[in-house]
Amino acid sequence: MAAKFASRRNLSFLLYEVFDAASLSRYPYFSSHNRRAFDLVVDSAFSMAKNLMWPVLKEMDENPPELSQGVVKVHPSVVQIMKECGNGGWISASFPEDHGGDQLPLTLSNAARFLFAAANYSLSVYADLSTGAAHLLLSFGRKELQEMFVPKILEGKWQGTMALTEPQAGSSLSDIITTATPQGDGTYRIQGHKIFISAGDHSGVENVVHLMLARIEGAPAGVKGISLFAVPKKRVEKGGKLTGNDITVTQVYHKLGYRGTPLTELAIGEKGDCHGYLVGQENRGLSCMFQMMNEARLEVGLGATGIATAAYYAALDYAQKRPQGRKIGQKDMTLPQITIIEHADVKRMLLFQKAVVEGSLSLLMQCSMYSDLAMVTQGEEKEKYSLLLDLLTPIAKTYPSESGVLSVSAGIQCLGGYGFCDDFPLEQYYRDIRIHPIHEGTTGIQAMDLLGRKVVMKEGRASALFFAEVNAAIAAAGKFPELAEKASRLSDAMERLQKVTMHLIGVAQESGPEAYLADATLYLHFFGLVVMGWQWLVQALAVQKAMAERPGERENDFYRGKMLTAEYFFSYELPAHLGLAARLMEKNPVTLNMRPEFFVD
Amino acid sequence: MAAKFASRRNLSFLLYEVFDAASLSRYPYFSSHNRRAFDLVVDSAFSMAKNLMWPVLKEMDENPPELSQGVVKVHPSVVQIMKECGNGGWISASFPEDHGGDQLPLTLSNAARFLFAAANYSLSVYADLSTGAAHLLLSFGRKELQEMFVPKILEGKWQGTMALTEPQAGSSLSDIITTATPQGDGTYRIQGHKIFISAGDHSGVENVVHLMLARIEGAPAGVKGISLFAVPKKRVEKGGKLTGNDITVTQVYHKLGYRGTPLTELAIGEKGDCHGYLVGQENRGLSCMFQMMNEARLEVGLGATGIATAAYYAALDYAQKRPQGRKIGQKDMTLPQITIIEHADVKRMLLFQKAVVEGSLSLLMQCSMYSDLAMVTQGEEKEKYSLLLDLLTPIAKTYPSESGVLSVSAGIQCLGGYGFCDDFPLEQYYRDIRIHPIHEGTTGIQAMDLLGRKVVMKEGRASALFFAEVNAAIAAAGKFPELAEKASRLSDAMERLQKVTMHLIGVAQESGPEAYLADATLYLHFFGLVVMGWQWLVQALAVQKAMAERPGERENDFYRGKMLTAEYFFSYELPAHLGLAARLMEKNPVTLNMRPEFFVD
Repeated sequence: MAAKFASRRNLSFLLYEVFDAASLSRYPYFSSHNRRAFDLVVDSAFSMAKNLMWPVLKEMDENPPELSQGVVKVHPSVVQIMKECGNGGWISASFPEDHGGDQLPLTLSNAARFLFAAANYSLSVYADLSTGAAHLLLSFGRKELQEMFVPKILEGKWQGTMALTEPQAGSSLSDIITTATPQGDGTYRIQGHKIFISAGDHSGVENVVHLMLARIEGAPAGVKGISLFAVPKKRVEKGGKLTGNDITVTQVYHKLGYRGTPLTELAIGEKGDCHGYLVGQENRGLSCMFQMMNEARLEVGLGATGIATAAYYAALDYAQKRPQGRKIGQKDMTLPQITIIEHADVKRMLLFQKAVVEGSLSLLMQCSMYSDLAMVTQGEEKEKYSLLLDLLTPIAKTYPSESGVLSVSAGIQCLGGYGFCDDFPLEQYYRDIRIHPIHEGTTGIQAMDLLGRKVVMKEGRASALFFAEVNAAIAAAGKFPELAEKASRLSDAMERLQKVTMHLIGVAQESGPEAYLADATLYLHFFGLVVMGWQWLVQALAVQKAMAERPGERENDFYRGKMLTAEYFFSYELPAHLGLAARLMEKNPVTLNMRPEFFVD
Repeated sequence: MAAKFASRRNLSFLLYEVFDAASLSRYPYFSSHNRRAFDLVVDSAFSMAKNLMWPVLKEMDENPPELSQGVVKVHPSVVQIMKECGNGGWISASFPEDHGGDQLPLTLSNAARFLFAAANYSLSVYADLSTGAAHLLLSFGRKELQEMFVPKILEGKWQGTMALTEPQAGSSLSDIITTATPQGDGTYRIQGHKIFISAGDHSGVENVVHLMLARIEGAPAGVKGISLFAVPKKRVEKGGKLTGNDITVTQVYHKLGYRGTPLTELAIGEKGDCHGYLVGQENRGLSCMFQMMNEARLEVGLGATGIATAAYYAALDYAQKRPQGRKIGQKDMTLPQITIIEHADVKRMLLFQKAVVEGSLSLLMQCSMYSDLAMVTQGEEKEKYSLLLDLLTPIAKTYPSESGVLSVSAGIQCLGGYGFCDDFPLEQYYRDIRIHPIHEGTTGIQAMDLLGRKVVMKEGRASALFFAEVNAAIAAAGKFPELAEKASRLSDAMERLQKVTMHLIGVAQESGPEAYLADATLYLHFFGLVVMGWQWLVQALAVQKAMAERPGERENDFYRGKMLTAEYFFSYELPAHLGLAARLMEKNPVTLNMRPEFFVD
């Protein structure tokens, strides 16, 4: 197995040379940190990833959780990781100090998350879910609820989850029917079914706290009648004793990949004895839950980037070692074979992977910086960062997921037949990463979020802010002749995107929302390419600055690799927007004309 | 599990309405067949696929072959299928009558292969391999060899294989080192290692006959020193007794998918007692083997199309039944949910799958027709069909494989979380189909074959013939106003392809073969899109003719579905060539500039 799953060098490049994360410590909230503290965080995350998570990657895949006598048995590493994450303060790292946290910038805790996901995605999910659940309770829960649940979650002793999906509703949250009946004592009795709940129950913790959506009796139909509840697996009696809370695991799904985390089906309150506690206001559950969902969407992006990164290094390692064939045109067959990394097509596949994983990580660090800045700034500045984060979240979830799937597939291809066999980890990564375009809102859902909501919200203010950021990068690139071509390509693509957007708004006015959103997924991909072009230009800018300082030979190779990867992106990937734009500028509503009965044959 | 894995209606449409396969019976060689006989073949293939192969799809995936005490144990269905294929004449269906065959057109036996692959790809491979091996022996083997091996293979009692790949050589066949030492009695002793040999040994047959590449002692280096041998697992002693022939299975690979067929590693002649028999002339093995490889490449295309077709019907079935969400803009949440096939984005994903699988099958039927016509025609006509088949083979292998992977992935996406779970067959199809861009020559190898050899061979004669075929379709479309737009888009794309080809030939002259072939894979994808556009235009032409006859309502729906799928292809898929062309027209050799050491980080 390849020894490398992520690059320390590239992470430092992004954190300090591209985004200047150290500058966050000038804000009072982050002032107890500095670059040295950040480095320690990254070192320590790397070491945990390498020593605890990476070694059990395959073992966890081969021994997935099983439901046996009502208990979901998970790999022993889960106990260990929850303990480490609790003791090491990883679950609460970015929380305020007065809630037991370290006030670490999200940029840094997300860098750690990326490393954990690269080492072992399944194992990294448990703590992430707990962080999201605890954050939700701290943001919207009453003090008693916080006191009852949060400390145990942060210690890693109890698992937090998000419990949204139901069998009859799937992505359509407005159709959830789990009910909550008020008892007059401030508690509710919950009854219903949830499916696909990650870590919804397992043997690695003493208790599980579900942040669960349900409908209070008599609530209005649709999303305006959904409330949020904390629903523990075992409830806390007076005196602190834990009692079963009438939640049964009815199934653990057998799945393609991501096998180290149990995906559970839950029957809730079958005996009428499941107590739930309202979080936030009645019927306002979805807007609370969106905090957790948006965090989770960035985490999905990080997870996909992590897996694709590990796959890239596995493919690179193989390509560097495997001799096969000779340079094209070399007729002397008595010469030894060359390593396959010398073949142009293999380099192309490696460049594709490098472009995807480093571009994705760059975007995720960018979004994390926006999130940190939104928290510590005020007024217009705060609004700016919030809007940029809102706009970019569907892309930061989708581009790494969709391109990550293709990237891992290219990794398999580099290994040929060996990529298909489990002697190498590529086949597992290929299975693991396929969940990402699905969970936390499918790509189709993200596309409607982007085009149906984010692009048009506040009269297009978020888009305008985004284009201003891109233009700022283009302007900065003007100082470097080596960047002129890249800047001009990005500018062309961005203008085309703006034209397409205007065209689609015309479609909405002419033909209504269904026609407007029919090709939202293509629009999302187009937008994603422009965003990636921006991130590659931003990285190329940092490279130009660094190279002006005349770095040493090895560093020089690193920077030249970066520049050529940027070139690869602008030359091979960005042009795909031309095909998307061609379709999006058409008016023929092919998918709307395709009636269900025409699929007959 | 969905009840449908392929469409009888669509197969008839292609065989008779698009390609007029029945007209083949006017050639003497095929004159014992007619449309009614063809229909019986298809009926009988459908019935075998449905009753024998389809029911064990999952079971075979869950119980892959295991090596135990030197024996590769396979699922009991393998015995049954080999018997049925032997008794039913499937292995020899297209062979001449005087070799025990039925002289069935390849178009029909490939239609049957497609159905078998759609029902259960792994199980379909055994007989296909035997067909290829027997065909090779009949084409190049001495009479004694034919008599020794072919009847048993055709009866399904012995397995045929192709044994090319070696650990140190992989795709680089010129580097194989398995040796053949002449014994003076006309036999050779073979010694070496082979890897990734499909069905290289198993409990479902009495014996295995490897068509194996090896190097006769003292042969020149490279491909010009490779010879072809028949090497049985058990050799036939005088009197007919079978004796072990010193071939040991050292490994059965554990793989991502395609788990019903054992992929084996073989140690050959470790005791110096492995007898091999020369097939064809010394040092001319590779050109003999190319016959089998070219057949196998079409079979890979058919296999990928089969799997993707079954996945499409599974996704369609789900989309037709699964209620979720409401029409966009529908605010009344008390209304019942609609089925997801009503959502534009789901229809888009289904249209993508339909476009891939029906377009791929169309191309494979087209290539099969060319193969049949090449066999029964003479002179210039024969050359024309042979060249077209040569040119299109790398595309007929690659487009279904590469797009098939994406198509099955879209099928998973239609099911959301359920697509990731093994309650539905999509996750298996996703694993199974990933082998196709790899085996029988990776996509990169196909790309070099297309651009490095096929496009330029005989001064571009094959390409010229191909463009003439496309132009003929465009001209025929001129009679139908509904086809004008499609014809004009295809014409544009073809002209762009010609321009790109000329540009690349200029690159070859200026910068040499490495620069010429650096982006061969992109060129292959571009060429593939034009080929698919042609096949969709050809299908749309058949639809126009059929609709002029005013068919009944159900038939009308079928034809409208076809037309909209063609529209989908021209509107959503063909424009991807714009991005490819943009890159291919550049001169910046990004991948050549990317030196291996620049991947450092």
